[in-house]
Amino acid sequence: MSRYFSDRYASLVPYVPGEQPQDRRYLKLNTNEAPFPPSPGVLAAVAEESGRLQLYSDPDARALRAKMAETYGVTPDRVVLSNGSDEVLNFAFMAFASDDRPLVFPDITYGFYPVFAELNRLPYTEIPAKDDLSIDPADYLGGGKKTVVIANPNAPTGLFLPLSEIERIVKDNDGVVIVDEAYVDFGGESAVPLTDKYDNLLVVGTFSKSRSMAGARLGFGIGSPDLIRDLNTIRNSTNPYNVNRMTLAAGVAALTDAAYYRDNCKKIEAAREKTAAELTALGFTVIPSKANFLFAKHPAIGGKQLYLTLKDRGILIRHFDKPRIADYNRITVGTNEQMDTLIGAIRKILNETGGQK
Amino acid sequence: MSRYFSDRYASLVPYVPGEQPQDRRYLKLNTNEAPFPPSPGVLAAVAEESGRLQLYSDPDARALRAKMAETYGVTPDRVVLSNGSDEVLNFAFMAFASDDRPLVFPDITYGFYPVFAELNRLPYTEIPAKDDLSIDPADYLGGGKKTVVIANPNAPTGLFLPLSEIERIVKDNDGVVIVDEAYVDFGGESAVPLTDKYDNLLVVGTFSKSRSMAGARLGFGIGSPDLIRDLNTIRNSTNPYNVNRMTLAAGVAALTDAAYYRDNCKKIEAAREKTAAELTALGFTVIPSKANFLFAKHPAIGGKQLYLTLKDRGILIRHFDKPRIADYNRITVGTNEQMDTLIGAIRKILNETGGQK
Repeated sequence: MSRYFSDRYASLVPYVPGEQPQDRRYLKLNTNEAPFPPSPGVLAAVAEESGRLQLYSDPDARALRAKMAETYGVTPDRVVLSNGSDEVLNFAFMAFASDDRPLVFPDITYGFYPVFAELNRLPYTEIPAKDDLSIDPADYLGGGKKTVVIANPNAPTGLFLPLSEIERIVKDNDGVVIVDEAYVDFGGESAVPLTDKYDNLLVVGTFSKSRSMAGARLGFGIGSPDLIRDLNTIRNSTNPYNVNRMTLAAGVAALTDAAYYRDNCKKIEAAREKTAAELTALGFTVIPSKANFLFAKHPAIGGKQLYLTLKDRGILIRHFDKPRIADYNRITVGTNEQMDTLIGAIRKILNETGGQK
Repeated sequence: MSRYFSDRYASLVPYVPGEQPQDRRYLKLNTNEAPFPPSPGVLAAVAEESGRLQLYSDPDARALRAKMAETYGVTPDRVVLSNGSDEVLNFAFMAFASDDRPLVFPDITYGFYPVFAELNRLPYTEIPAKDDLSIDPADYLGGGKKTVVIANPNAPTGLFLPLSEIERIVKDNDGVVIVDEAYVDFGGESAVPLTDKYDNLLVVGTFSKSRSMAGARLGFGIGSPDLIRDLNTIRNSTNPYNVNRMTLAAGVAALTDAAYYRDNCKKIEAAREKTAAELTALGFTVIPSKANFLFAKHPAIGGKQLYLTLKDRGILIRHFDKPRIADYNRITVGTNEQMDTLIGAIRKILNETGGQK
């Protein structure tokens, strides 16, 4: 730390993203990336747009917001775009949480939420998930002014809360409820239709997972026009050209090629169910997932040990060295071939350690 | 504003970027974009990278930071990259300004500085530029703990402060001096070599102007390793994947194709000097510029009137409706052909209004 660093941020502990080692080629099952490349339409749109890079992107992102509106059945004034969904999450924390409306989210969830809260010096409470790591909706009721953040499906568990439970929480609460739907396209159900009915619901999404665009950085928020206006006040005071030209064009193309991505999601869902069954057969406890990852533990091998052994053998999965979930690992679901490689490697490790049942 | 909007930001007035109208095709001389497309190497790099968009970008941006280090004669740990230079400016305001080290910048400068200060609720003083709109370095001396921000060349004037004056300010000050060099490649001299000598100097740059990448969003900061570490603490608590894959690849290619961009800058400089002479011949007061724009006023026609009349005729320039500079307009320097069109249109307007001398 330099001696000029502001006291405000001196104790800030940044979020640590999944490792991206450059020392060797890994089978990467650690950051929930899609195993499929973007659609041909996306490649064409990017190539076309790259010849105009000397011009700023449209700060109002009119073309992509119109296409988003068409896709999600809303009006364009209910859509805000961001440089990945982390950015719109941060904007939403800034805009809607305060000393009067403190943040509330589960203890087992996306690790960036407490970082955004600390960054903005906002009060927050982490509500313990149940023993099975599921969220009890009752914990988020009771009225009052609070800003609720729920990832649905949740990360790193993959558990999905039915929409009726989300609606109960939204209805009950006199603060904005942020529903982070990064993983909703793998069998979940989006709360976007509810944003028409409730002015305190903000749905956050991303093109990183189901639309194979993690490297392009495109996130979005959908809510009432008033909520979106507030988010734009923050966005336009931070970085009005926050989404680059190539990504805006790629976004339009990805929404146009919807069938390609829907098909990919179906493949991932099938691979997930197959992998979950195989892991269960190997003795793992596997949490039922509606996301493109599985969260699993084994009685015979510690979470960290399995993670390190697989890494040593060229397969990266994600281990969180945190209380309550240290026994688990989060495994991104890739293609069937990738999953076969993983299951083969795990079977071998369990044989070696005598852990196979 | 929604009733959930935080009091912190309720009175925030966002920055207003130059207009990007979609109603008709304009000759755009209003946002200091380059008139030249990116180099062929950039197009090839983007096309190549777009096939890997399903993978996250390297949060440490190792390849581009190494190339930046080579280009600027520094080590990679002295470089941070951002989603346009606005982002790194905001990070620097957050990291280095505080109640103890209030912000100081000229009243006539980049309009985003006061917005960043308000956004982060940081104290700031706008020091009046001299009557000729130049900055008096003496105003930034006097020791003490302050965070100085100077655009060099300054915007919207184009005036360049010699490096010796920048060094005096850095040496004298017990706070970080942020030198915003967005326009340095058009005849100015970069302060980057001074970052080796002073641990309180942060130089900010962009690929938007001289490298024809406004639409790709790539900015950077260069300073001591400690300052860069502080900026990364903020960056990694906000958006660790802040620069997308395509832009990272485009950045490496642009630095590789340095000769192409240097040649473009020379063309802009020549067009600038020619245009300045022609405007002066038409009776304009033209501020001596080292940037890719000219700031000029005419005794016979108001700044707003000239801007509106040109807009009506399909040419966009930038008018700032602000005290002290309302008579002026900022004109982006494009190709010689574009400048001929502009000068022809202005000559016609002055003839019509009887303003030609």
